[in-house]
Amino acid sequence: MTRIFEAINSLREGNFVLIHDDDNREDEVDMVISSQYISPKHIATMRKDAGGLICTAVSKEISTKLGLPFIYDVLNIFGTANKTISLINQNSSPYGDKPSFSITLNHVNTYTGITDNDRALTISSLANICSELNKNTDLNGQKAILEKFQMSFRTPGHVPILIASKGLLNERKGHTEMSIFLTKIANMTNVTTICEMLDPHNYKALSYKDALEYAKENDLVIIEAKELITYAKSYGN
Amino acid sequence: MTRIFEAINSLREGNFVLIHDDDNREDEVDMVISSQYISPKHIATMRKDAGGLICTAVSKEISTKLGLPFIYDVLNIFGTANKTISLINQNSSPYGDKPSFSITLNHVNTYTGITDNDRALTISSLANICSELNKNTDLNGQKAILEKFQMSFRTPGHVPILIASKGLLNERKGHTEMSIFLTKIANMTNVTTICEMLDPHNYKALSYKDALEYAKENDLVIIEAKELITYAKSYGN
Repeated sequence: MTRIFEAINSLREGNFVLIHDDDNREDEVDMVISSQYISPKHIATMRKDAGGLICTAVSKEISTKLGLPFIYDVLNIFGTANKTISLINQNSSPYGDKPSFSITLNHVNTYTGITDNDRALTISSLANICSELNKNTDLNGQKAILEKFQMSFRTPGHVPILIASKGLLNERKGHTEMSIFLTKIANMTNVTTICEMLDPHNYKALSYKDALEYAKENDLVIIEAKELITYAKSYGN
Repeated sequence: MTRIFEAINSLREGNFVLIHDDDNREDEVDMVISSQYISPKHIATMRKDAGGLICTAVSKEISTKLGLPFIYDVLNIFGTANKTISLINQNSSPYGDKPSFSITLNHVNTYTGITDNDRALTISSLANICSELNKNTDLNGQKAILEKFQMSFRTPGHVPILIASKGLLNERKGHTEMSIFLTKIANMTNVTTICEMLDPHNYKALSYKDALEYAKENDLVIIEAKELITYAKSYGN
């Protein structure tokens, strides 16, 4: 339990937390950070030290309020008139879960969209919108925030958005859900940025053992899916 | 002109070529390689040394044969029933070009899809399909290859696909078109993998000066958009 509280504190302080999912699922460690704290330096660290896709995850509630769909549902409609899309658009992964992918975004004030500065602007601006949605619960306020979102972002962009399952760890045990669950128990806005850690030499995912070493060297908290799942059961989610 | 022939030779030998676009456009250098030669090592090099999105570009002709749409067109249809998507889905970038993004792919035999091994498998398998399309021009043959494509790939995945404008450099002067134009004049299959080079320290794109240095250190050819554009005019494309 202690490590979960350490992870919560790390997130609150704007530090990375490493999360290892189940050996029987992806067996992968992701770097996770609250999107509210994201800076260009964090983007640079993720692309250099982790190496996967730098994605921003939001809760199902936030995606619904902003009108962000799963890309599977978008392609499903397009697939009615396109055989290739209808055949290759799949709502499951080799490890059984449905993909979390929504659309990709750029903030309107980015230029190429891909630099550390640009991706940090896109992600931190989205985090601000999500935070405002949390604070402002009356209908007119929510409508104004939605309009601000619609004016401030463009798709396609360079930050893939992920949507957590509504039931979080009861429904899907992915890094998307685990990271959003962490923000929930930390009482933070439900928006995170995550990146898969890849091995620097063997072309595979970074092993749990090497991730432990990285965590130690960089003074980061690393937690395992089973710890979060046990905690989630006691938490009622 | 010599540098273009050097670039063609590099591509044919399966090496990276660096392409700098116009100072008035993105002012960005991309690493470019023929997807036919991609290996896990190349993916690792791109994520470590370049740091942008690792995308695979195909010609318009190939995308049409495979049924791969621009994501703008996909989202445009979805946007008729989703106000957010209709408002944020934009067919232009801050530098005036329309985005090249299609859907994202994973090969069916990948696991997480993101490791160097997995991305190389996705990209090299797609390159094989594109190469077969080139060689086999009768209708039944093309149909069989299309069916193989539809059985071999899944979306959403971890490799963003880009589609070059039909008119290549006459229509759009992006890295997508420049890389596909290079394969065309090299008489190779029109499928490349490209990645934006980011500065390791200042959170911006890698400067042309630093890219020249990287090219020198790694014995790579670096060419500028204007050289390709001049050559394209003499080439009639």
